[in-house]
Amino acid sequence: MINLDHISASPLLPEVKDAMIEAVNSDLHNPSSQHEAGEAAAERLEAARETVRALVGAKDGKEIVFTSGGTESVNHAIKGAAMANRKNGNHIVTTNIEHNSVIRSLKRLSGEGFKVTSLPVDETGRVDPDDVAKAITGKTILVSVMHSNNETGTLQPVKEIGRITREKNVLFHSDAVDSVGVVPVDVDDLNVDLLSFGSNRFYGPHGVGGLYTRKGTRIFPLLEGGVQEHNKRGGTENLIGIIGMGKAAALAAENMDKRGEHLLALKRYILDKLPAYIDDYLINTNLDHSLPDLLNISLRYIEGESVMLMLDGDGVAVSTKSACATGSLRASHVLMSLGLDHADAQGTIVIAWGIDNTREEMDRFLDALAASVKTLRDMSPLYKTP
Amino acid sequence: MINLDHISASPLLPEVKDAMIEAVNSDLHNPSSQHEAGEAAAERLEAARETVRALVGAKDGKEIVFTSGGTESVNHAIKGAAMANRKNGNHIVTTNIEHNSVIRSLKRLSGEGFKVTSLPVDETGRVDPDDVAKAITGKTILVSVMHSNNETGTLQPVKEIGRITREKNVLFHSDAVDSVGVVPVDVDDLNVDLLSFGSNRFYGPHGVGGLYTRKGTRIFPLLEGGVQEHNKRGGTENLIGIIGMGKAAALAAENMDKRGEHLLALKRYILDKLPAYIDDYLINTNLDHSLPDLLNISLRYIEGESVMLMLDGDGVAVSTKSACATGSLRASHVLMSLGLDHADAQGTIVIAWGIDNTREEMDRFLDALAASVKTLRDMSPLYKTP
Repeated sequence: MINLDHISASPLLPEVKDAMIEAVNSDLHNPSSQHEAGEAAAERLEAARETVRALVGAKDGKEIVFTSGGTESVNHAIKGAAMANRKNGNHIVTTNIEHNSVIRSLKRLSGEGFKVTSLPVDETGRVDPDDVAKAITGKTILVSVMHSNNETGTLQPVKEIGRITREKNVLFHSDAVDSVGVVPVDVDDLNVDLLSFGSNRFYGPHGVGGLYTRKGTRIFPLLEGGVQEHNKRGGTENLIGIIGMGKAAALAAENMDKRGEHLLALKRYILDKLPAYIDDYLINTNLDHSLPDLLNISLRYIEGESVMLMLDGDGVAVSTKSACATGSLRASHVLMSLGLDHADAQGTIVIAWGIDNTREEMDRFLDALAASVKTLRDMSPLYKTP
Repeated sequence: MINLDHISASPLLPEVKDAMIEAVNSDLHNPSSQHEAGEAAAERLEAARETVRALVGAKDGKEIVFTSGGTESVNHAIKGAAMANRKNGNHIVTTNIEHNSVIRSLKRLSGEGFKVTSLPVDETGRVDPDDVAKAITGKTILVSVMHSNNETGTLQPVKEIGRITREKNVLFHSDAVDSVGVVPVDVDDLNVDLLSFGSNRFYGPHGVGGLYTRKGTRIFPLLEGGVQEHNKRGGTENLIGIIGMGKAAALAAENMDKRGEHLLALKRYILDKLPAYIDDYLINTNLDHSLPDLLNISLRYIEGESVMLMLDGDGVAVSTKSACATGSLRASHVLMSLGLDHADAQGTIVIAWGIDNTREEMDRFLDALAASVKTLRDMSPLYKTP
């Protein structure tokens, strides 16, 4: 199988596999236990925290909370910050293109008396920082804007927004699940107070993630119980997964530039070749501001899901939208926000390659894509042969 | 090291290690992805769910939600059920000896307008089902009583309480983190609507757990985002950990009787031998109703923590209280609830053995215990040599 669906799952790196297998075989005890076996486990936990801390540019390891993944991080950040700062206001600012974990967390808070302003994006998929500045009122306690969009790969002007929120003294969370480990993300450079991220995006295991919480940020725990994670998250840690994430974070930091070049070269390769294979398509990714490893393409007159299934038959995995939204028949809220009509939004595929993909694989993908598009358009009543 | 602190961490079984290593090496995709690679991952996920379902006697796999461990399960059950049923009432009944994940979840709800009645236990550490019946009012929406206590190993009359809550039509959650996989737990026999459990208690990995939610139970998700876990918990699953848990669950169900005999034999062995090694001690575990693998002992005139550290020096790991409470200087709320005075509560050690321990190890533990108790009492101003 050619995996062009890295946004749903990236393979574990060999070094990450080795680290996790070593951890599985190590009979690690509980990092919170006070005996020697517990202390040995705690050292492994803190070593992983250190590489994750460095990856996002946090000053102090205590600002990193290990979570069960991006969704927990986002829920923790948004619900925890909102509830802990409720006495200062009840207004939250976000955008129309956030991941469902943000949208649903904010919907839950709406039921608890919070007011949410959700900002539009322009036709290239970006929010305007001025709109954020204008939306902030005296009651605003939190701004949440994603770093890159999981369906289009379009990067948001997070740094500019961070400057505004810092100036206006409002907490700023960024869902950077699809950026951290892929492109440089530095919490101080961005001026974020809270940053959510996962491990699989940089070839670590699924079900492990992190939440950066800037020192001094008022936030309630989401998982309450023991005093783990500096009292920010109860529950004995998934140490095997965390060790895998720690290894993956170290490798991501070390190799980010080199990886970026490879990924970007593949992006240019596809964009250059695409017109020779298909016509009547839209690129929904903002090519001036986007991740190096993802393209969102609308194939007019046909269904993205049918293309995905045909490509699957040819041994190429792509997706049509967030794997988190599987089963939903609705058109992507992200693409509708860009101004696409319903048909074009439904005609979309998301291609997300990785450091393990090659040009030869891209050629095979393009061949398979051209064939499936032709077959489907030949069957489509919407498509008129020229 | 002799691990007599299984309650904090039990070693992975060889078969569980093998299953996890196989999973690490399998390049599993995202179970929510619709292509073939995703479907293969989903099959692995559902196979694990099936063994976990069987372990707790659930009728339908859809009633099992995989979580990041017992703490998440408890937070999800309590906060999710309370918030989803708020319009029916705001009263919750619990006991004084619950785990901190229950206590802190309920404390959070108290701040949201819920009223909590916390019931005492008798001097043997058990709650009286009649007290539960009397505490339930027309406004009661939830009862939460643990199945076994994590510090004393004492089993609660959950089945009797389940009969009452069913009759009174009130939701019943049991924190069975320390019971599931060790002693038989059947959700229908107990009449629970919600049951929390973890994987490490039955030699699966830490950081993975389950929440049983009886079909029809109104409950909000705690982690909101994607439609994973039948829309009950967003976030891509920790599939490697879940596969380990699934294997551990199958082995626990298969070997429960045999394991129980071994564990109980060790319990009797310690109880028989103990008087020959030390005096002036209290057994805080209810020996008529308790887990087969845990004893809570107060060693008068000395500090449990000092005993723990001396035993650690002799290569024996025990604990003094929940690893989740590490760092707290306060005496255990569980032991204070039993009526112990502060000094006896502080003089406590928790011994939790496992299927991997032997009588020879127990002899070594008893020798080391006797030596450390003698050394510490010789230094103790509270202790008068007879």
